[in-house]
Amino acid sequence: MKALVHEGAPGLEGLAYRDIEEAELKAGEVKVRLKTAGMNHRDLFVLTRHRPEDPPLIIGSDGAGIVEEIGEEVEGIKAGDEVIINPGLGWKENSEAPPEGFEIVGLPFHGTFAEKIVVPAENAVPKPSSLTWEEAGVLSLAALTAYRALFTRGKVKEGMKVFIPGIGSGVATFLLQFAKAAGAEVYVTSRAEEKREKALSLGAHQALDTHEDWTAALNGKKMDLVIECVGAATFNRSLEQLRKGGTLVTFGASAGDEVKLNLRTFFYGQFNLLGSTMGSAEEYKDMLSFIDANGIKPVIDTVFPISEFTEAFKKLEAADQLGKVGFSIS
Amino acid sequence: MKALVHEGAPGLEGLAYRDIEEAELKAGEVKVRLKTAGMNHRDLFVLTRHRPEDPPLIIGSDGAGIVEEIGEEVEGIKAGDEVIINPGLGWKENSEAPPEGFEIVGLPFHGTFAEKIVVPAENAVPKPSSLTWEEAGVLSLAALTAYRALFTRGKVKEGMKVFIPGIGSGVATFLLQFAKAAGAEVYVTSRAEEKREKALSLGAHQALDTHEDWTAALNGKKMDLVIECVGAATFNRSLEQLRKGGTLVTFGASAGDEVKLNLRTFFYGQFNLLGSTMGSAEEYKDMLSFIDANGIKPVIDTVFPISEFTEAFKKLEAADQLGKVGFSIS
Repeated sequence: MKALVHEGAPGLEGLAYRDIEEAELKAGEVKVRLKTAGMNHRDLFVLTRHRPEDPPLIIGSDGAGIVEEIGEEVEGIKAGDEVIINPGLGWKENSEAPPEGFEIVGLPFHGTFAEKIVVPAENAVPKPSSLTWEEAGVLSLAALTAYRALFTRGKVKEGMKVFIPGIGSGVATFLLQFAKAAGAEVYVTSRAEEKREKALSLGAHQALDTHEDWTAALNGKKMDLVIECVGAATFNRSLEQLRKGGTLVTFGASAGDEVKLNLRTFFYGQFNLLGSTMGSAEEYKDMLSFIDANGIKPVIDTVFPISEFTEAFKKLEAADQLGKVGFSIS
Repeated sequence: MKALVHEGAPGLEGLAYRDIEEAELKAGEVKVRLKTAGMNHRDLFVLTRHRPEDPPLIIGSDGAGIVEEIGEEVEGIKAGDEVIINPGLGWKENSEAPPEGFEIVGLPFHGTFAEKIVVPAENAVPKPSSLTWEEAGVLSLAALTAYRALFTRGKVKEGMKVFIPGIGSGVATFLLQFAKAAGAEVYVTSRAEEKREKALSLGAHQALDTHEDWTAALNGKKMDLVIECVGAATFNRSLEQLRKGGTLVTFGASAGDEVKLNLRTFFYGQFNLLGSTMGSAEEYKDMLSFIDANGIKPVIDTVFPISEFTEAFKKLEAADQLGKVGFSIS
């Protein structure tokens, strides 16, 4: 089969769409023929983490397709089923943190940017019928991360004011859509006018310019919940928008991971700072049900044929997308 | 009446135990003749915050005594009742954060280092009969702060491993006693061998030297809950002891309030950082019931006659006490 394989040189240079042997199907696993896949920032990270001396690796964490073959001892799923891949391996039930040994598809195990993938049967989840193949393919990692951050950790409720700095990434767009669907009033920021306008069209109550004075722009309004996935560049500005007793959930640090925190301001504010990453298989199913029940459609920037992966990675590096970037495979 | 009054010069220099007019008793208030009072770090802070141009201020937040007179419209309390002062003004019911206008007795309003104090009737709470006057007098601010931090915020449960760096202060000693009474396994730190030994005698499972390698000393054990009231000097070392998904409650920063926080480590750990200060009147009553029900006796370092306030403040500044420092008044 063909797949997007990383080998040898670090970064994009080591990537090739080429033939590679199919993985062997073991008991408890299924083989899925992928129709679509989705890109994440994690793919860029993987290209720097997968070392030249490591064996060749098929990258990619998001994907959707049709079950082609099922291994022994697999029940409740059959060849021909339409599925979406939950990329989390080894985190089944809801818990405060993933169990030891938790991994994400695409590193260290082979990923979704391939004609076929072999995964544990429980990671092939029925595709919601409300989603197209493109929508299903780009969903998993970002939507699961957003779901846990917003619901499990942030405990979003109807009527809450929710602040999401850095709208534009796939995960931030899901946050906006989920928070709106939960009945929250959503405030976003972006440096790009186009992204601010798109956010307003998706239901944001107010879209702030990254460079303006946020406190002034919010005119005294304080936020019940801040979901912060930008990192050092915005962390303290985001925290300033929080009401006393409010919660900030952090799960990303693409713009720097080292922040200064004033403890006195923090405890006088009775603030809550909660870390989040990914989510469990239970949260994954809850997320798909929520998307289906609320008719949420992932915002897609571009779907590239997988052979044009170089363009896709360049788009991701430039961070000029709004919503998800995906691949069509078969 | 006589009282410990701050006026003019900042710091200890502006303090005098002298005559001052009694406050007028208004509707809804009670006048309490104080028998004992207790010192807090806050008193040192007040001496720097109360400005030379401000009117004379009776300092002090903790105290206990006998109701001498009740104002109009006061019910459920009468002259002769033995009471303990809840120093929180304007925070009645449990809530995520104190309401606007919340203040603590002793700044900006007159405090407890006096022969008499006038407070809202609801702030004069029946003294638990299990406590001596000395024990009741030194209790309020530290025990309330510890109670909210440990129970409301930290949600301590039986069997949890709880880490309390900087044992020795009144509030840390209450934390240790409360956590033990709740069935937790308590780990403490101190630079002073005497304090470590005292902590072990109070039921601490292990007492670490401030200067040793805590991770090594804990030998792989991770903490469910860290209650951090030291601040910058220990914050990141404390955070390192937390298990994935664990909680760190911060409510003090006597050793520096600016910390560096690595967001990536934080969110991969799925940590919770929760700010806390003081507590509500509801929490105050719950705390007194808990102390009474569990036979907890405040650890008292020294009780000075109030005329010897200079010695008492020097002790507090040197931070060499273990437990509370108090005053006998009448």
